[in-house]
Amino acid sequence: MTRNILVLGAGKSTSYLLDYFLEKSSSENLHITIGDKNPKSLPEYIGNHPNCTLLTLDILEDPARAEAISKASIVVSMLPAKLHIKVAEDCLTLGKHLVTASYISDELRKLDAEVKKKRLVFMNEIGLDPGIDHMSAMQVIDRIRAKGGKMLLFESFTGGLVAPESDNNLWNYKFTWNPRNVVLAGQGGAAKFIQEGTYKYIPYHKLFRRTEFLEIKGYGTFEAYANRDSLWYRDAYGLQDVLTLYRGTMRRVGFSKAWNIFVQLGMTDDSYIVEGSEGMSYREFVNLFLPYSPTDSVELKLRHYLKIDQDDIFWEKLVELDLFNPDKKIPLKNATPAQMLQYILEDSWTLDDGDKDMIVMYHKFGYELDGKKKQIDASMVVIGENRTHTAMAKTVGLPVAMATLDILNRKITTPGVQIPISKEVYRPILSELAEYGIRFNEFDAPYLGYNPDSVAG
Amino acid sequence: MTRNILVLGAGKSTSYLLDYFLEKSSSENLHITIGDKNPKSLPEYIGNHPNCTLLTLDILEDPARAEAISKASIVVSMLPAKLHIKVAEDCLTLGKHLVTASYISDELRKLDAEVKKKRLVFMNEIGLDPGIDHMSAMQVIDRIRAKGGKMLLFESFTGGLVAPESDNNLWNYKFTWNPRNVVLAGQGGAAKFIQEGTYKYIPYHKLFRRTEFLEIKGYGTFEAYANRDSLWYRDAYGLQDVLTLYRGTMRRVGFSKAWNIFVQLGMTDDSYIVEGSEGMSYREFVNLFLPYSPTDSVELKLRHYLKIDQDDIFWEKLVELDLFNPDKKIPLKNATPAQMLQYILEDSWTLDDGDKDMIVMYHKFGYELDGKKKQIDASMVVIGENRTHTAMAKTVGLPVAMATLDILNRKITTPGVQIPISKEVYRPILSELAEYGIRFNEFDAPYLGYNPDSVAG
Repeated sequence: MTRNILVLGAGKSTSYLLDYFLEKSSSENLHITIGDKNPKSLPEYIGNHPNCTLLTLDILEDPARAEAISKASIVVSMLPAKLHIKVAEDCLTLGKHLVTASYISDELRKLDAEVKKKRLVFMNEIGLDPGIDHMSAMQVIDRIRAKGGKMLLFESFTGGLVAPESDNNLWNYKFTWNPRNVVLAGQGGAAKFIQEGTYKYIPYHKLFRRTEFLEIKGYGTFEAYANRDSLWYRDAYGLQDVLTLYRGTMRRVGFSKAWNIFVQLGMTDDSYIVEGSEGMSYREFVNLFLPYSPTDSVELKLRHYLKIDQDDIFWEKLVELDLFNPDKKIPLKNATPAQMLQYILEDSWTLDDGDKDMIVMYHKFGYELDGKKKQIDASMVVIGENRTHTAMAKTVGLPVAMATLDILNRKITTPGVQIPISKEVYRPILSELAEYGIRFNEFDAPYLGYNPDSVAG
Repeated sequence: MTRNILVLGAGKSTSYLLDYFLEKSSSENLHITIGDKNPKSLPEYIGNHPNCTLLTLDILEDPARAEAISKASIVVSMLPAKLHIKVAEDCLTLGKHLVTASYISDELRKLDAEVKKKRLVFMNEIGLDPGIDHMSAMQVIDRIRAKGGKMLLFESFTGGLVAPESDNNLWNYKFTWNPRNVVLAGQGGAAKFIQEGTYKYIPYHKLFRRTEFLEIKGYGTFEAYANRDSLWYRDAYGLQDVLTLYRGTMRRVGFSKAWNIFVQLGMTDDSYIVEGSEGMSYREFVNLFLPYSPTDSVELKLRHYLKIDQDDIFWEKLVELDLFNPDKKIPLKNATPAQMLQYILEDSWTLDDGDKDMIVMYHKFGYELDGKKKQIDASMVVIGENRTHTAMAKTVGLPVAMATLDILNRKITTPGVQIPISKEVYRPILSELAEYGIRFNEFDAPYLGYNPDSVAG
């Protein structure tokens, strides 16, 4: 009997997801319906596949959405997170399973009791981050606990970067995901974490000067800055007693120090409209944030303001972005500083046709066993194939697709609104991901409780 | 016939206001009713005055409030700004004039048409800042315009400080007003202003490193940092075409550089609760914002983090606050960083019994007349008498009191929800304020269009 999978939203991250389903469609008896506002934008081979139907669908139209869902065996929502709830409510009413890669919203969490009552699986946070991070971390944590170890430390870092073979700018960075999220990263409140039992708080304007270094064999050195939400993982992973809990975002070394210039100037602010943004030159944009002078140059004012030495290497990074160009204009009307900065960065940091991206993830697990403090480090690197088949699309899409099939095939049966932290979920998926080259390299490390290679400036 | 004045709220700033009314009560036929939650906290001489009645009043109780207002000829609201609207609605219904020292809220502004229809005067922003700043500025601007001058520049600065004779700490600062407002000053968005025709934006975390110096004869040098709202004054003062518009807050030189340490660390953040705030030592509080180290001292970590040289003079300012004391504890439960910092500062910066405060205000008016660019500077200094009769209470309370009497005496008659920018209002009040020693010292200055004595670091 054919099983109908409804995929809602056919955006950037669905290439591997759809390929996986189509490839398995004959052997697994699958029919895939892709519901999207503009499904014609998908490559032809997908729409022409015998086991695939394209459906033009406005997700906000209640009857059309419910009708599409009613025909499915399971629904995969790759829509923006805020649209999941409407889909989830229909799935609950119509008795369909649901899979998403997004964080569970409070609204969605409230459906848990009813979802359980109907024996449905609503699997969320099963992409890359959140997703592979949950699964790979819980696998090691469960193993440590099974041996009788007591968790002391958990640190976890993820980065979406450009692959070494395509890494040809001074920032060692290109946009491989939503540029807006990159520009706004870290805003909205202080970063909070706990280190060796003491709470630590970093305000946004210091975030990019409180980095630490991480080494991945064969890939060199990376740096990481703190995410906002580290303490959340205490409850999720059952780590209430750990001394150290830290989550961070990975970049190539030197990125954060240069990015900090934008933060210090106020260029990442998204809370107000710049007067006369339309037609403003890159140079004028920089000058908005510098003191007035009838004579001094924008360059000298910036150097003096932020105490940048004449021979500081990161100055070239600013020049590479054409930041002081008086002729290049920003065409955005009524734009915020963050939107204007994004425009300038996209001018330089967009992937070229042949460019490949790279996903890196790094975990540290500190624990006590038989009176001794130990540590396991685990790292993962995934390189993309091209501009559509990116490492990002692969690491987000494959776990979603695998979970969908595992639910259909009753490998995953525990009902409820959930995230992939149980053995039942992570074991089959991690082992299948390894077949696709998504695997962690584990090794023992000395337990320190903190990173001696950290920056604070 | 006796005129009844109802004063709502008998807080910090009402000493001069009440004295003024009581002193004039016989000659002007006034009876003053003071409505407050706890009117007994007022000095005895006020409650015992024959022309004064104390009324215990909960402003949120609608019938009691309306009854008190119905008996008055005019209402003076010294309540917190958010409570004005209830009073204003009653005043409108009952046909009473209203005077407040607060900014006009959007809600209040909406009553304007009806207030005009009933020929009532709702005078607002008639304290110090806003208040004396409006009146003194508009007097000079109107004079320049009357001569045929065209305004090019308006800058205005105000500070609530400690008087020179009571200035005995390294910060040259004590709290003379709501300490919470001082700790949160500058937050909530970038400061915006215009200088020689170019817009300038300063993010909060740079605000205290973008100061400029001001000299007041006989009182030495001050510094000023930008207020958030300079552009608002274009419409209020009819300055749409000026090249430079800047409003700032005055401190003694060196305050801002040291205050910046708190901002950089994140100690002024009011958006989250610190875990375990109750019983935390001053030293532990500082350490929340510094990197973890198993060995390094809080002092060295702070010096290194913020690049403070060993011989930097402002280090002593931190030591004076006892910031590194491991024994002094903060007793606040579930407190934000800003609340904890306020506690530490109040420990050092509270006015002693004999201490006097000081108000400083400084305006710059740049204009073109007969093809020449000129500038007038005007400054005001007011010293308080003691801890209750402060310069702050004097400069806030007297203009409110004078406006009240001028409305009763039909010197001010133009109806509507308004601020004191018309001749009808500022002329009598400024001339009466001068009798109380509140006056500006004016002099010509060279027109530059910017302040060459500015800091950007």
